[in-house]
Amino acid sequence: MTIRLLLSIAALALAPSLFCQEPPTLTEQYRATATKLIDAALIDHGGIDKLSYLCDRIGNRLSGSPGLEKAIVWAAAQMKTDGLVNVVTPRVKTTHWVRGNESASITDPVSRSMNILGLGGSVATPKKGITAEVVPVSSFDELEKKGRAAVEGKIVLFNVPYEGYGRTVTYRHTGAVRAARLGAVAALVRSITPVSIQSPHTGALEYTATDPKIPAAAVTIEDAQLIQRLTDAGTVVSVHLEMEARTLPDADSANVIGEIPGREKPEEIVVIGGHIDSWDVGAGAQDDGSGIITALEAVHIIHKLGLKPRRTLRVVFWTNEENGGAGGLAYREWVGDQVRNHVAAIEMDGGAEKPTGFGISGGRGDSQAILSKMREIGKLLERIDAGSIQSGGGGSDIAPLMRDGVPGLAVRTVGTHYFDWHHSRADTVDKVKPEDLRATIAAMAVMAYILADMPDSLQQVPAATK
Amino acid sequence: MTIRLLLSIAALALAPSLFCQEPPTLTEQYRATATKLIDAALIDHGGIDKLSYLCDRIGNRLSGSPGLEKAIVWAAAQMKTDGLVNVVTPRVKTTHWVRGNESASITDPVSRSMNILGLGGSVATPKKGITAEVVPVSSFDELEKKGRAAVEGKIVLFNVPYEGYGRTVTYRHTGAVRAARLGAVAALVRSITPVSIQSPHTGALEYTATDPKIPAAAVTIEDAQLIQRLTDAGTVVSVHLEMEARTLPDADSANVIGEIPGREKPEEIVVIGGHIDSWDVGAGAQDDGSGIITALEAVHIIHKLGLKPRRTLRVVFWTNEENGGAGGLAYREWVGDQVRNHVAAIEMDGGAEKPTGFGISGGRGDSQAILSKMREIGKLLERIDAGSIQSGGGGSDIAPLMRDGVPGLAVRTVGTHYFDWHHSRADTVDKVKPEDLRATIAAMAVMAYILADMPDSLQQVPAATK
Repeated sequence: MTIRLLLSIAALALAPSLFCQEPPTLTEQYRATATKLIDAALIDHGGIDKLSYLCDRIGNRLSGSPGLEKAIVWAAAQMKTDGLVNVVTPRVKTTHWVRGNESASITDPVSRSMNILGLGGSVATPKKGITAEVVPVSSFDELEKKGRAAVEGKIVLFNVPYEGYGRTVTYRHTGAVRAARLGAVAALVRSITPVSIQSPHTGALEYTATDPKIPAAAVTIEDAQLIQRLTDAGTVVSVHLEMEARTLPDADSANVIGEIPGREKPEEIVVIGGHIDSWDVGAGAQDDGSGIITALEAVHIIHKLGLKPRRTLRVVFWTNEENGGAGGLAYREWVGDQVRNHVAAIEMDGGAEKPTGFGISGGRGDSQAILSKMREIGKLLERIDAGSIQSGGGGSDIAPLMRDGVPGLAVRTVGTHYFDWHHSRADTVDKVKPEDLRATIAAMAVMAYILADMPDSLQQVPAATK
Repeated sequence: MTIRLLLSIAALALAPSLFCQEPPTLTEQYRATATKLIDAALIDHGGIDKLSYLCDRIGNRLSGSPGLEKAIVWAAAQMKTDGLVNVVTPRVKTTHWVRGNESASITDPVSRSMNILGLGGSVATPKKGITAEVVPVSSFDELEKKGRAAVEGKIVLFNVPYEGYGRTVTYRHTGAVRAARLGAVAALVRSITPVSIQSPHTGALEYTATDPKIPAAAVTIEDAQLIQRLTDAGTVVSVHLEMEARTLPDADSANVIGEIPGREKPEEIVVIGGHIDSWDVGAGAQDDGSGIITALEAVHIIHKLGLKPRRTLRVVFWTNEENGGAGGLAYREWVGDQVRNHVAAIEMDGGAEKPTGFGISGGRGDSQAILSKMREIGKLLERIDAGSIQSGGGGSDIAPLMRDGVPGLAVRTVGTHYFDWHHSRADTVDKVKPEDLRATIAAMAVMAYILADMPDSLQQVPAATK
């Protein structure tokens, strides 16, 4: 190859940029800022320190509990300490369910104590408990096939193998109602988890206004399988269940909100956050302490670096996500017509395992064009292997915003062990690796800052033309 | 290539077997028998059915418990049903430790209930319990460096990261004594496990005759780490511990022994088995229900196929392996001088995850020559990926035989999750995959049969010449 030929090739390669002056991509525009944010996040200690304080000192935070109230007071103060302004805690009325004492045991054909967790929202058993034959089923279809004759007066056990959270959790949500419709006196649900070390996982159930309310509890995979084996061997298995669970009058709670006001368009808002409540076991570390602390620490780092985004960056800790969703609805109501100024919402509620990127759904523009824009930001996260931008975002607290056209994002992770710990006594700080939390904070800081600062917002992506 | 050339090559290849008449290898001699045994084991249902009966119906089996006594009666009857003869249950006196009620909680600077399991052999706390400051250490070195001034009157927490069972279990065995020597009033030991879902793992401790006996309990990784984090943050952490544990007068127990008598050399014995006792939590499924059922079912299959080995094949279910080892010692005493006729001993006590092969130690012959012989058998297990023969075998119940020169074998497995469940409430039948148990039974049947039938026994391998 001659020098002359090489020069010709080089000239051809340069030609497009000489002749068509393309606007710079977000990747180009924000490379230096992203580097600064990531550098700062990767040496951050504040995130894990705050998560430890929240989970170790305050502990779990079910709606209506003193823990949640303490967490709200602490969070508002911490937001101010971390440089956020306009910190407010608008009141929210929430469900107030309490577990009370609970226990269960197999009484026949063998005597074995069980390790249960009543499902959130469940009613109590009668004071002396319920003792009845157990009918295990592996699906709603099997339940329906067995029918009232097989189920009436008995305890239905939904012994459903885990096939991913989304597919399996329906048995926790609606198992009690489906069993009650056929005359069952209680429902047991195999914990929604891929892995068990005799560890029950709680979570909310849903009653209906018209069906009988029967008590329901999560059992471990081990106990569910034991009942299944004994039944398969032709034995009638009986269980004794005692639960004191009850729902008290609604409690006072609050969302916690703080901001970095926008320097040019303060009326436009990027909202990021997670839920401050948790279940009443474990410490709510992955679910969702990691979500709220990631949002807070990301904005804290932006503030410490003296960065002022064009739009307002708002951090929200929603209350009552776990058993009611009152916080998300109350926030939607609180912003009123300003929902149209929300240019993006990021909810982190899938834990802080190693992040892989973001999912996105909704928004007013063309979804492919939004994805392209997002991928320009994603490129800046490749350095920390968190640059994957996929369709499919949102979260239950931002769903009310998304219904009004706000693009909703979710942090995505490798998701290796999250559901091993989720809603169990094992959701504790040790499950959050500091290096993963730092990477998540880095990804959140870059994404939130650019969404709040980019010249045209995600809502200015044109709609698809047909 | 011409036909003539091909024939010449074939002739050359055949030449050695024509001219040097080597004795057939064990691989060649037993290929047909191994195929029959493996075929039968891979469709076996008896193994998992018996394991389920033992663990689900009888349950756990700590020395001195009614569960162990029931298991012994059942095992002797089952051996007879399965075609074994000379079934005996020679009496063995064992330790009789009982757990009683136990509880612990962090009382300061936060209030959290803990999930503990007292260590086997531990003494009780005073009736009102012990409340004291906790001193976490990560090694004996750190404990010694802190010294009496830091430890006296306090509770020592051995918060030692898991580095494999063998390396880490020393803290469970001797932590209480080491802490007591420096004046500690109790010891907590982080559970010896790589994985935790708030799950404590028990196991035996060892007191000495001269050191003070202080109560000791296993705590979960989660609780150990919480105490560590609170301490690292500069807080004094206090724990309240209540344990009723006590050691009663020795109990009556028994080994369970049955045989297929040898057809030619009935006085020579291959002994195979595991331990029938377990801890008092979970069901002792992997540890060591799987070991005894594998041995029994392997011999049952040999019997069903009408195979009669040259030597006696003896199945032994040793008692009291977990907290005393009386069964292994009693068996050694029971066989007396006949120990010299034991040509091999196989103990399976590492669970029935997917088997990889066998480890071997000891014996009177040259260890390399023994390994070579064993590898001829190993080749027959390659079909089920269980043909790896490695140096390093034995087990605590056959150690007394091995000290008298008997070669000791152990079943080896992939060992992926065994210690996640070991000595915990989660050691239940669901942890044993039927296909893994079948493969293990296949490997045991082939190994045990050939060791009992091969023309020259493992003890006839010549000693190394120097």
